[in-house]
Order: sequence, then C-alpha cells, then structure tokens
Amino acid sequence: MAKDKLVTAITSMEEDFAQWYTDVVKKAELIDYSSVRGCMILRPNGYAIWENIQKELDGRFKQTGVENVYMPLFIPESLLQKEKDHVEGFAPEVAWVTHGGSEKLQERLCVRPTSETLFCDLYSNIVQSYRDLPKLYNQWCSVVRWEKTTRPFLRSMEFLWQEGHTAHATAEEAEERTIQMLNLYAEFCENVLAIPMIKGKKTDKEKFAGAHSTYTIEALMHDGKALQSGTSHNFGDGFAKAFDIQYTDKENKLQYVHQTSWGMSTRLIGAVIMVHGDNSGLVLPPKIAPNQVVIVPIMQKKEGVLDKANELKQRISKVARVILDDSDKSPGWKFSEHEMRGVPVRVEIGPRDIENNQAVLSRRDNGEKITVNLDNIEEEITKLLNAIQVDLLEKARKHRDSHTYTATNMDEFEKTINETPGFIKAMWCGDEACELSIKEKTGATSRCMPFEQENISDTCVCCGKKAKTMVYWGKAY
Amino acid sequence: MAKDKLVTAITSMEEDFAQWYTDVVKKAELIDYSSVRGCMILRPNGYAIWENIQKELDGRFKQTGVENVYMPLFIPESLLQKEKDHVEGFAPEVAWVTHGGSEKLQERLCVRPTSETLFCDLYSNIVQSYRDLPKLYNQWCSVVRWEKTTRPFLRSMEFLWQEGHTAHATAEEAEERTIQMLNLYAEFCENVLAIPMIKGKKTDKEKFAGAHSTYTIEALMHDGKALQSGTSHNFGDGFAKAFDIQYTDKENKLQYVHQTSWGMSTRLIGAVIMVHGDNSGLVLPPKIAPNQVVIVPIMQKKEGVLDKANELKQRISKVARVILDDSDKSPGWKFSEHEMRGVPVRVEIGPRDIENNQAVLSRRDNGEKITVNLDNIEEEITKLLNAIQVDLLEKARKHRDSHTYTATNMDEFEKTINETPGFIKAMWCGDEACELSIKEKTGATSRCMPFEQENISDTCVCCGKKAKTMVYWGKAY
Repeated sequence: MAKDKLVTAITSMEEDFAQWYTDVVKKAELIDYSSVRGCMILRPNGYAIWENIQKELDGRFKQTGVENVYMPLFIPESLLQKEKDHVEGFAPEVAWVTHGGSEKLQERLCVRPTSETLFCDLYSNIVQSYRDLPKLYNQWCSVVRWEKTTRPFLRSMEFLWQEGHTAHATAEEAEERTIQMLNLYAEFCENVLAIPMIKGKKTDKEKFAGAHSTYTIEALMHDGKALQSGTSHNFGDGFAKAFDIQYTDKENKLQYVHQTSWGMSTRLIGAVIMVHGDNSGLVLPPKIAPNQVVIVPIMQKKEGVLDKANELKQRISKVARVILDDSDKSPGWKFSEHEMRGVPVRVEIGPRDIENNQAVLSRRDNGEKITVNLDNIEEEITKLLNAIQVDLLEKARKHRDSHTYTATNMDEFEKTINETPGFIKAMWCGDEACELSIKEKTGATSRCMPFEQENISDTCVCCGKKAKTMVYWGKAY
Repeated sequence: MAKDKLVTAITSMEEDFAQWYTDVVKKAELIDYSSVRGCMILRPNGYAIWENIQKELDGRFKQTGVENVYMPLFIPESLLQKEKDHVEGFAPEVAWVTHGGSEKLQERLCVRPTSETLFCDLYSNIVQSYRDLPKLYNQWCSVVRWEKTTRPFLRSMEFLWQEGHTAHATAEEAEERTIQMLNLYAEFCENVLAIPMIKGKKTDKEKFAGAHSTYTIEALMHDGKALQSGTSHNFGDGFAKAFDIQYTDKENKLQYVHQTSWGMSTRLIGAVIMVHGDNSGLVLPPKIAPNQVVIVPIMQKKEGVLDKANELKQRISKVARVILDDSDKSPGWKFSEHEMRGVPVRVEIGPRDIENNQAVLSRRDNGEKITVNLDNIEEEITKLLNAIQVDLLEKARKHRDSHTYTATNMDEFEKTINETPGFIKAMWCGDEACELSIKEKTGATSRCMPFEQENISDTCVCCGKKAKTMVYWGKAY
C-alpha cells in the first residue's frame, strides 16, 4: 500500500463493524497479510504493542514466582495422543510435519497447538520429590491451529501467546494457582488495557480439552459481541496419570501431581481495537501505546519552531514515550495519521504558541484540547496520560454495563440479543441440552458462570426447570 | 534427574572436553532433552541467560533505529524457491508441513530455516518510494534446520535467534549497515559476554546461500576450536531482483533496493560455556548471569544468622541480582551447586562474621576470597562484579592470543593444528581448491579473512603461489 493512501476515510463502525475493524488493523499498519493463508505479519506498530503487553504481564508472572522456559516447537504424534480428551480436542486442527529435508519421518510431528503434552513429558522427568514442587513454568512462543476462517488477531493459523504450566503437590494448591492467574489476568486487562472483565467458570461444554475446570475472563466489544480474553485451566491429576508424573511426599509415598495451565495471546490486541477504537481509527491506552505522545510542529519552516519542538521532545522523553513528526507532510495530514495509529496525546506547537510560551495538548480518546504553559508541560502530559488511562476504562465499563441485559424466558432472550446485542444474564438449569438449544435459536453461547452470581429468576431461561446458576450469554468472536 | 544427583563430579575438560560440555549443560540445569530428536528444552537457568542476552542486544538494535516485527512460521515452497542459491542452500535441511488437520495441503509449507524470503515478500508489498526506505526490521523467533547430528546450543534442529533484515536505497548504505551490525555484535560479545572476537569476511565457499558477501565474528573456545558466533550478510540487489522489490527514487526512476540480514542465536550460550567454564561447571559473566550473587548462610539455624542474611539480600538487591539459599542443604553442598551454575559472587555469612560485622565474598571465576566490612558491602559487590566482567574478557583474550599461531607451509600447518589446537593465521591465494585441500588434510576450515590483515608471508600456505589475503583457519564447531 502506498504511503499516500495510508490515511483515507475508513468504513464507519456503525455501517459495517467487521470492515471497520479490518480497515483499522491495515491502516494503522498493525498487520499485513502474508503469502501463507491465515498467517499474519505483525508490523512494527502492532509488534510494539505486543512488546508492551509482554513486559507488563511478564513482570507480574515473575512476581508470583513463575520462571520462563522454552519448549520444542514439535510434538511427536504419540506424545499428543497420551491424554485422550486432549488429542480429540486438538488433533483436527494441527499442522503435520511429515518430511525432514528429503526424508520421510518415521513418526509425524505436529506443530504445537498448545504445549501441555511437552510440559508433562518434562515434568515426568524432573519431578521426583515434594522438594521439586511446585513447578511454575511459562513460555512466550507462537502456536499453530489449522483454522478454516481467520481474522487478524482474533483467529489466525499462527498466533503469539504465553502459556503457563504448573505442577503442584495438592489439588488445593492447583486450584489456588488457577484462580490466582485468572485474577492476575483480569487485573492486567483492567489496569493496563483499560478493559473491564467478567470473571467466571466455563460450562463443561465450553471447557478446555482435558481440563477438570476452565476459568475465563470475558469482555464486551463495541458491537456488543463477547470476546474470551484469557483462560486458566485446572487439570486435576488427569494429565499426571496419563503421563505418569509422580513424586514422593514427606511420608515417602508416591503421589500424582496436580496441574494447571493458563494463556493469553495477541487476541488481546483485537480486544483493544474493538473496545476503544473509533471512526478515526485506533485508540490506545497509554500504558501499551508504542508512542504515548506525538509532537506536531505548526509552520515548522519558521525559524525556531523545530528547535522548540526538539527541545520539548527532549523534555517530554523523561516522562513519556514521545516522537516528533517533522516530516514534510501538512499538519492536518499528520493529525489524521497519528489519530489512525491511536497515539494518546498530540502536542501542537507553532510560532504563536512559542511567543506565548504555550502549547496545545489534544486527547485522542475524546478530542479535548487544552492549552498549557510550557514551563510545566512534563507534569501536564503525565496528568493527561493518567487521566486517559482511567477514563478509557470507565468508558468501557459504562458501555459494557449499559449493554448487559437480563432475560427470564426465551422470547425475551431472542428479542434482546437481536435488537440490542450485548451480554445477557440469564438462569440455567445446568443441562447441556439447554445450552445447545439456546445456541441454535439465538446464536448466543454461554460465556461463563460468573463468580458474582445474581438471582435473576428461579427457573432456567430455556427449559423452565429449576435453575442452578446464572450464566452470561452472548454472541462471541 | 533427581535433585540429589545434581552435584556430582563432572568429567574434567582436559580428559574429555565434549563430555565435560554435556555434563555442564545438564548439571547446571540449562537444558533438558525432549522427546523430539535434536530439539532441546531451555530450562529456567538456561532461558534466563537468553533473556539477559536479548535485553542487551535488543536495546542496542533499537538505538540504531531497528524495529521489531513478527513474520509467519511457514514459508510456501514456491516462495522459498524464488532465489536460486538460497533454496539450494536451505531446501535439504528444512522440515515440511504437508497436512493441516486431516487434509493434504495443495502446496507444501516449510518451517522457516531463516526468513529472507518472507521479508522480501513483505518489502515487495510495502516499499514503493525512496521515502519508505530504509526498512530496518528484526525479529526474535525460533527457526528449524533438519540437522543430522546435534549438540545443545551449538547445533540443534530448532533454535532461538534474532534475524535482522534491512532494505536500503543504495549499495553503499547496505554495506554500511552490514558492517555496522557486525561491529555491534563484536562489541556486545566483548562487553557483555566477555568473549573477544575476530572480525572478518567469509570466503566465497563459506558465505551464506544467496549473499554477495558474508561477514563473521569468530571466537576461540577453551579446547582450541573456533566458533562462528554471529554473521552479517550483504545481499546486494540479488533478492530484490528475484522478489521484484523496487522503489521510485527522487528522480522518479525505478530502482532495486539493496538488502542485508544478520543473526545471532542461543549458540552464544554455548560459547559462554566453552570460553569461561571450568572443572567446577559454568562460569557466567555478571552481565548475563541470572543470579549475580548468592548468599549462603553458615550455621543458619543459629539465632540472627538468617535475619542478617535476609537483611543483606535486601541491601544487595539494590545493586545486583541476588538470591539467598536458605534451603536445608549443607553449606558445602550449596557452594558446589552454585559454582556449577556459575553464579559470579558468593557471600558467606555466619555467626562469627556477624560478630565482626563482616562477610566473606568469593569469586567464582578465580576462587579468590576477600573479607569485607558489612557497612559498605553494596560497593564491594559492585566493584567485584565489574572486576569479574573485565577479568573474564582479559583471561579469554590471553587464552585466544596464546592459542593463535602462524604457518607458512602445510607441514607447519598440520603439525600446529594437531599438536596445539587453536587459530592458525596463514596466507591464501584466493583459490577454493586450496581451501578444500587444507580442509581435507587438516580438518581446518577458513574462519575468516580478518579486517586486520598481516603479512605472514608472500605465498599461499597450500599451493605456494602468490598470496592475496591472510586467513584465520581453525577446526570449528
């Protein structure tokens, strides 16, 4: 795509949300398509967001004692098959390596879709005694799933993620770690991505292949669709039995370990786009914005303007990630370009501003402009970035809450999901047949059984029998 | 492997260097073998070294304007075949994906052995005008090469690395960037890994598949073998022509870009082991040591000892990465364990030390012990870490220099390489036949034509004809 086509009108989100999304990821230069179907290229603007996400998450992991490792890319077919549910869940969507150079392999290798089997294999070798526990390992890597239809960040053949895998002496410890990581994920999403999350448990139908229980955080996108944003699984001792991971306890008895795994991916970037973005493009929370501030000089050829802009850049760089756009494009063009890329704060500085020892600060999230004295521009920028971070979360929370509905019968359910897309809170009897029936009738799936339960009614929204749980339902990405 | 087998005698390096190496990587818990032939598992001790290497290198890259991206794992067969020399060099050693789920693919995909073809494909899409240049992209990822024989870190089927790929308007700029990155690599290796490097150009026979010229940094291991530690390639416009990467210059004429690529990998960890390690295990330069200081309490059950040790940990953590080993193992056991892992400084603190307001600091690299006053232990630690970093480089340089020889004829060459393994500086006529003959007779290959040339003699060491260049020769990993 030529540079001069970079900033053109994008489809409005009200008109076609899917096309708006695709326009934004391309025009903000987050990704490019590659010659491999369904594989995306993360360009510098997109990858820098991922680096900021990694840094924030990785620090949080390490604070809880997690250590990073790197496991092989390939899984031998026989290893994948050791846990029955797991292989059934993943075998249909893996890529198979059958040849090395010109030789046919004796055993096929799959490109990891997730690495439970590899971690189990390792743990069975290195865990012997209670002294070796817990093992709290994580890896940052890419995984491959042979998807039929793909969308940038949301569903692609290959994607970047982290996968944590832990082994514990007791069932209680494993459950505790599963919940701890879910809470860590939710805290991260709220405080860093400015996206509020519903925390809860998946129904049996929706849980991970091989897990005893799967916990999830669910977010609501601008179009009223739900996005599963991170999951944390408790495996109990199922994998330990399949892979024979045993340790001798303090009484010298052999015991199986209890395991967990938990993951988040570049899908989070899709969430950021669809929660905060607008018709001018990307809107980035300051904490993950590659550039938090862009300085746009006005009448930059006038003497002194670029000098002042460079001086401001130096000063602001002490408190924020800042760039100066001194290219030969017009200011208006630059405004659009950096709005498209979601830079949180723009600083405009021209001859008149310099005369008055001031600059204009413009917020990307709401367009507000304030004129500030240059003497304390560092503090003003810091205040503004903090305010944007807080306001984005608040705005997202309001949108989410005002698009969360209740339903007590299927008529209500169907009417609501079709007329006002969003989360629907409704009671459920616990029967998978009702889940299937709701999906068939409405397209909505059970997102989670939230930790914060409410009593919407006494009967299942679908079958009318006695209700067990309140469930969040929604159409999902 | 059970914990209680962790610290046992390892093979001495004088007796069997290869076995010593294998013992160290296993017993320092850097790696474990996996169920996939030739793929290694990077355990926390090993991966943390790689994280430190990444951090130091990535910062240096970004300072020169490089941006990180992420490219797909797979390369379609037709894309790999676009540049003739390149495909000939790599096709014999790639892994082929032939099936996705249960379906046979229409076109085979290879798992990237390196990503020149993918970057070229991207550049052909996003480079139009001279304003789009230069493109200075890098990625951190794993690559796969179907090797027959493998050794941890040195040669494995899958390994972690970084690959930089740049596109420039002119041949001069491309050459400049190629040399710039080689110099950056050498500076990094000397100042961070404490390994001195010979910088030079590869002969045509040894250059990268598809490159116009390949530059290299070469290090000498403790056993006198050479290790190619990083390479930087100038592709000229060869790939640009194969992939049709053209831009319009300022005069509105179509021009081909000029490209480079450069990479370093986890092989560097192998270099660190083989340059600095000794018969007690790993010796890590402080700048990449996951833990720079370990505190070992003496008589830790005595009142006040662990309190004091914890207080020291708090204080030292302000200036260094420090751990306190308060496990119930004996001090002697702990000494051996942390020596095996290469922790640069050990702090011993016991009841008598506390009485005297002192601690004993022990250097991993040379075993020296000093007693220091607790009041200024932070400064003492800082001084000691700096000294170790400097001394390791000095020691490695001395070893390298004292194992670098000259030869003016083949008798001398053969005798030297067999009796005193190391680098041999010898003149070469420029004829590939002589390179082949030397390799056949002695097992040594041309490592590089160093930037710093010397005139050893006037004639080729092999054929006796007029010499063109001085070459570093050596047996290599």
